[in-house]
Amino acid sequence: MSVPHLTTALSGPLLDLERKILDAQSDIEHWFRNQWQEHTPPFYGSVDLRNAGYKLAPVDMNLYPGGFNNLNPEFHPLAVQAAMSAAESFCPDARRLLLIPENHTRNQFYLQNVAALARILRHAGLKVRIGTVNPDITEPTEFELPDGGKLLLEPVVRRGKRLGLPDFDPCVVLLNNDLSAGVPDAVRDIEQTVLPPLHAGWYMRRKTNHFAAYDKVVNEFAKLIGIDPWVINPYFAKVGGLDFHERTGEEKLAATVDDMLARIRAKYAEYGINQTPFVIVKADAGTYGMGIMSVKSGEELIGLNRKQRNKMSVVKEGLEVHDVIVQEGVPTFESIDGAIAEPVVYMVDHFVVGGFYRVHTERGIDENLNAPGAKFVPLAFASPPNTPECDGNPDCETNRFYAYGVIARLALLAGAHELEATAPEPALAMAI
Amino acid sequence: MSVPHLTTALSGPLLDLERKILDAQSDIEHWFRNQWQEHTPPFYGSVDLRNAGYKLAPVDMNLYPGGFNNLNPEFHPLAVQAAMSAAESFCPDARRLLLIPENHTRNQFYLQNVAALARILRHAGLKVRIGTVNPDITEPTEFELPDGGKLLLEPVVRRGKRLGLPDFDPCVVLLNNDLSAGVPDAVRDIEQTVLPPLHAGWYMRRKTNHFAAYDKVVNEFAKLIGIDPWVINPYFAKVGGLDFHERTGEEKLAATVDDMLARIRAKYAEYGINQTPFVIVKADAGTYGMGIMSVKSGEELIGLNRKQRNKMSVVKEGLEVHDVIVQEGVPTFESIDGAIAEPVVYMVDHFVVGGFYRVHTERGIDENLNAPGAKFVPLAFASPPNTPECDGNPDCETNRFYAYGVIARLALLAGAHELEATAPEPALAMAI
Repeated sequence: MSVPHLTTALSGPLLDLERKILDAQSDIEHWFRNQWQEHTPPFYGSVDLRNAGYKLAPVDMNLYPGGFNNLNPEFHPLAVQAAMSAAESFCPDARRLLLIPENHTRNQFYLQNVAALARILRHAGLKVRIGTVNPDITEPTEFELPDGGKLLLEPVVRRGKRLGLPDFDPCVVLLNNDLSAGVPDAVRDIEQTVLPPLHAGWYMRRKTNHFAAYDKVVNEFAKLIGIDPWVINPYFAKVGGLDFHERTGEEKLAATVDDMLARIRAKYAEYGINQTPFVIVKADAGTYGMGIMSVKSGEELIGLNRKQRNKMSVVKEGLEVHDVIVQEGVPTFESIDGAIAEPVVYMVDHFVVGGFYRVHTERGIDENLNAPGAKFVPLAFASPPNTPECDGNPDCETNRFYAYGVIARLALLAGAHELEATAPEPALAMAI
Repeated sequence: MSVPHLTTALSGPLLDLERKILDAQSDIEHWFRNQWQEHTPPFYGSVDLRNAGYKLAPVDMNLYPGGFNNLNPEFHPLAVQAAMSAAESFCPDARRLLLIPENHTRNQFYLQNVAALARILRHAGLKVRIGTVNPDITEPTEFELPDGGKLLLEPVVRRGKRLGLPDFDPCVVLLNNDLSAGVPDAVRDIEQTVLPPLHAGWYMRRKTNHFAAYDKVVNEFAKLIGIDPWVINPYFAKVGGLDFHERTGEEKLAATVDDMLARIRAKYAEYGINQTPFVIVKADAGTYGMGIMSVKSGEELIGLNRKQRNKMSVVKEGLEVHDVIVQEGVPTFESIDGAIAEPVVYMVDHFVVGGFYRVHTERGIDENLNAPGAKFVPLAFASPPNTPECDGNPDCETNRFYAYGVIARLALLAGAHELEATAPEPALAMAI
C-alpha cells in the first residue's frame, strides 16, 4: 500500500500545477475540511480525469461508480474505513442495507463490481443483500463470477412504503443503478433513505449542471492556490433543442463548437501549447460512452451521415438526445505499454479510496476512452500521500496521485453542490 | 495491505469468543456507530491486549501512544485517512499543529515514533512542527534517526496565552507527552485547543478510573453479543494509602490479592481452565512498566525485600506510588519464534489503524511485557476485515485481528467515558 507498483512508468512534463498543489497541501486540506463541513458529499463517486501535462481536469463525474472491482485489493481496508465514515454520516442507525445494481446481468465485469462493493459494505459492518429491479429476474438467482465467486440477486418486494426482500427489511437502500430509464416503480416514494438521492439519477441529472457547479468550486480553489482555473477546468457549453435525426440545430451546435475552439486556441497560444484543439460533444444526460463525438471543427457536425446521426441521437436505455454538452477536449499524455491511459479516481464519502487507469489500445489521445472495448488496468493508487520520500518531485507517482486525488475531490465537491442545487422541493420529491 | 504477512503463525485454540464476535459483526459495528455519536473518542490511543484463548482482554490503554514507528508502513494511508477524520472532528479549522513529545531524547525508538506520527499528520494535510518542553533543549536541535532521517525539535515559546515556536503560531497543540510530571508551565492555561485534554495526563489519570469505565462499556457490549463479560474483562481492584518504603498497607494489599485470586479460581473452575491464577499489581498512575509485580498469592507481598520495595515505590519521573491497581493476570498463549507475544492495537480517532506484537524472549506468559528490553515485532494488522475468504474460521489471522480491533475499540470507548467522567469543572480547568 506504499508506492504504486505500476511497471508502466508514467512520465511526463513536470507540471507546474502539480508543484503548486503539493506546496499548498495543508491549505488545500484545510479548505476541503471546511467545504465538507458545509456540503454533504455524495455517498460515493468516481471521476474520470485527463492529464495533458499543461492541464489536469475531470471530464466526467459518476455518482453510481461501477468499477470497484478494478481497485487494487491492497486498498480494500481504506475503502472499508471510508464506508464506515459514510455509514456514520448517512445512516448511523442502519444495520441492513439493500444494494440495487444495474439490470444488465450479462456484464460479468459489472457483476464483479457489485460483488466488490458489497464486500466493502459488509466489512464496514452492514448486513448487505442485493435486490434487483430487473423484471426478468423473478426469483433469487445466483450468478457465477469469473473469479469463482458467486453473486445472489433477489427480486425486490414492496410492502406499503417499504422496499425490501421477502425476509429482509433494510434500513437503507443504496443505488448502484444510475436510473437512466427513470425511477423504477418499486423504488418510488419509499420511506427508507435512498442513497444517492433519486434526483442524482441520469433520468434527471445533467452534465452541464455538474460542470456549472464545478466552475464555482474551481474558481474558489484556483484563488486559494493561485492558479489559472483553466488548467484544471475544461470549457463547456450546453446546446439544447437538437434533433440529430431531423438535423435540427446543427448550425447552432457547429457555431458553439467553433466558438469554443477559438477560446481553446487562445489559451494554447497564451501557454505556448503546440496542439490542435478539439472538443467533445456528448449527451447532456446519460453515460456509458454512447452518443459521443470528438471534433476539431464545427463543420464536422454539419451533414453527419446516417450512422453518425444514429450514434449521436440515442444513449443508454434508448433515450433520445436533444441536449448536448460541448466540452473542451483534454488530450492525455499518459500511456501504458504504448496504449493511452486515462485515470479514474474512486471515492467513498469524501475520501479517495483508490483508482485505476482506463486504457485503450486502439484509440487516439483525443478520443473518449469510456467506450465499448476499453481495457482496464487496475492502478495501485497510494491514496493521499505527498511523500517527502519523493523529494517533493511532482513527477513522482505518489505525488502525482495526490494531485489526482485533489482534482477528483473538487469534482466530488461539485457533485455535492450539484445535488444541493438540483434537489427537488420536498413536495415534488414526494411526487417522484 | 490484505492479509498479514506474519511468518510467525499465531495458532491457538479456536475461540468461542472470536466466533461470537465474527457472527455479530453488523450488530457490533452498529452499536459502535451509536456509541461514537454520543461519546467523543480520544484523538488517538493504543491498547495492550492479552489473548489467553479462553479470554481476550485489554490490560492497559495509552492515551499518548508511543509506537507509531512499529506499525506496518503499508497501513500508513489508513492512519492518514483516520487522522483526516480526527482533524475534521477535533480541529476542522486548524492548519498548523504543534506536536509536543516526551522529553527523553536519548530514546531512538521514541524519536522514530515522533517522526512517524508527524508524517501521518503531515500527510493528513496539517503543517506540523515539533515543540519540546525539555529544559535542556534551548535551541532548535536536529536529531539523527536510525533510518537516516532527521527530526527537528524546537523549544516552545509562550506569547501571552498562546503556545508556539518563534516563527510558528499553531492552531492546535497535540501532546505525545503523557504529563507524568504534571503539566509543564508552558502548556498551562493556553488558549489553543490541547489534545488530548490535559486531564488525560498521568499526573491526574488513574488506571482504576479507566477500568471502572471499561466495566460499564463491557457490560453493555456483553449483553449485545450474549457473552459473559469476564471473558473480555480482567477483574480489578484499587488499593490506596500504601507506602512500600514504610510497609504501610501490605496486609490490605495481600488480602485484596487473595480475594481476587479466589474469584479467578472460581471462574477457572467454571470454565474448566487448567491454569494457576495470578494477578498484576501496578501503580494506579503512570506508565512504562515500572512499579509492576506479578504475584500468585497475597503472601508474596508481605515482607518484600528492599529491592522489590524500591521497584514498586516509584514510577516514571520519580513519582511515589501510594495507590495501586490489582488486576487479574491474563496469560498470553501467543508466541512468535518461541518468544511470547502481546498484541498492541493502535487507533486514531475511532479507527483501528494498525498494530504490532510486543515480544519478549526472556519473560514468562504471566509477566508484564511492557518493560525495558522488550523487543518489538511489527505486526501486519489487516485492519477491520472479517474476511469471508477465511471461511469464517475465527482462527484465521484476519478474523483474529478483527476481534482484536473490537476489544481495543471497547477500551478506547472506555477511555472516552473516562475522560468525560474525570473532566474537571470548567472553572477548575482554567486553574490547572
